[in-house]
Amino acid sequence: MEMKLDCLPCNLQQILEASRLATDEADKQEKIMCEAVQLIADYKRFGKPPVLGRELHQLLVKHTGVLDPYKEIKQKNIEESLKILPQLQDFLSRKENKLYWALKIAATGNIIDLGVYSDVDVEQSVMEELGREFAVCHVDKLKEDLKSAKSVLIIGDNAGETVFDRILISVLGELDIFYAVRSEPIINDATIEDALASGLEECATLISTGCNAPGTILSECSEEFLDIYHKADIVISKGQGNFESLIEEQRRIFFLLKAKCPVNADLLGVNLNDYVFMWNGN
Amino acid sequence: MEMKLDCLPCNLQQILEASRLATDEADKQEKIMCEAVQLIADYKRFGKPPVLGRELHQLLVKHTGVLDPYKEIKQKNIEESLKILPQLQDFLSRKENKLYWALKIAATGNIIDLGVYSDVDVEQSVMEELGREFAVCHVDKLKEDLKSAKSVLIIGDNAGETVFDRILISVLGELDIFYAVRSEPIINDATIEDALASGLEECATLISTGCNAPGTILSECSEEFLDIYHKADIVISKGQGNFESLIEEQRRIFFLLKAKCPVNADLLGVNLNDYVFMWNGN
Repeated sequence: MEMKLDCLPCNLQQILEASRLATDEADKQEKIMCEAVQLIADYKRFGKPPVLGRELHQLLVKHTGVLDPYKEIKQKNIEESLKILPQLQDFLSRKENKLYWALKIAATGNIIDLGVYSDVDVEQSVMEELGREFAVCHVDKLKEDLKSAKSVLIIGDNAGETVFDRILISVLGELDIFYAVRSEPIINDATIEDALASGLEECATLISTGCNAPGTILSECSEEFLDIYHKADIVISKGQGNFESLIEEQRRIFFLLKAKCPVNADLLGVNLNDYVFMWNGN
Repeated sequence: MEMKLDCLPCNLQQILEASRLATDEADKQEKIMCEAVQLIADYKRFGKPPVLGRELHQLLVKHTGVLDPYKEIKQKNIEESLKILPQLQDFLSRKENKLYWALKIAATGNIIDLGVYSDVDVEQSVMEELGREFAVCHVDKLKEDLKSAKSVLIIGDNAGETVFDRILISVLGELDIFYAVRSEPIINDATIEDALASGLEECATLISTGCNAPGTILSECSEEFLDIYHKADIVISKGQGNFESLIEEQRRIFFLLKAKCPVNADLLGVNLNDYVFMWNGN
């Protein structure tokens, strides 16, 4: 997906928040923002939004030396998610269409970062959001594919959400499950370390995409990842960053996300903040 | 108030919305945004946020020829406000502390633009917000000042909100009331035309500040306005733009606003979206 004009203020807001996590020094924050505005002025050069996202992140590293400004936030998100895992399991146990609701749980994990910035009750917010059904849901296609599938690749998104994905994996059946994460810390996206802290190694083979952008840019991914990506019977891509970087690809993918920005909502034909589980083969 | 880093993404978002109101042509929107980013990169040159706001607005005029992209929105806001004026009067008639609640009505008028962008029920939203009391309210100081005052200057903010201000004026008593507006269309701020459409000429002497920024930059104001500003016994400044441009001035002013941005909320020592009626003499 090409960058849209909406991506410019949104990226500028995101780097401002990240710069404040990385340093308390006002002059450094100012330098980061000044250079960020210059990068954003040249936005066409970056093509897809996650590529600009990475360039902005690298400004942080350059000016503060902090490689992972979201480290504490990610840890807190994982802890909060592990705390409510029993409630998620209980929620699913009371549902008949387990695959649908496991997908819904995995998609809802995307809101776990809300709690970090405010005093909202994480458990309550998650339970409320769980009840909101998908605006688009190609679960029947997934059910059909699962009948003959031997392997599934899940491309993960944020740390914390990773814990919710264990619920999804638990209903997929006896398959080879691969769970892919970013190669390096970038915003609050999950890395191997975060996947391990989320307990994902118990139910999936963890791999790095080889890409350090907040998305999955195939031309930058490792051969190991690309081999799994092409051979997997089913690929489930989670979140907006992966959606933005994979939506134009040829292979069949299920996109599982909450449409948190108007550009993605528009592209998906849904309302802002709707949940979507969309197969790109329709 | 000096520009803060938070002003950069916020201004960029605002000019994006305005560019879409001014033109449907994508290439023009893109040109506006590219030049907007360049202006924002040089943000320190502008000093106060309303000065940058005006420069960005002038990009719109340059690229589209549209002098007043918010014209229809302003008209709609005024119409909606006139429609609920009887409900506002009824709300006030049931209150004992009329000055407090008339101030609250005038401050709540600031949310009238919400309805334009979504399907929310304007009357319901306004009535809900009316019930939220001020986080800071120096109404006792105003009561005291009104005992000896002969003249009041209100510096207006948005079109639509102007209608709500008629309620405030109705409780001030038999005084010379001056109501000041921007000299030219800028964002959704009120001009003389908007003040007339709101019916303000029935209860106040309408004047232009002489300044065409979305705030009141005294060094740019007309002599006529400055004379009233300095001589008025009481000055009530409405909204964030006026607050940002007048907060460091020497004369005593009552600031009446909803703290819609984190920078202003922080400066006022309140939470985001709190309502404030603050005298700067404390």
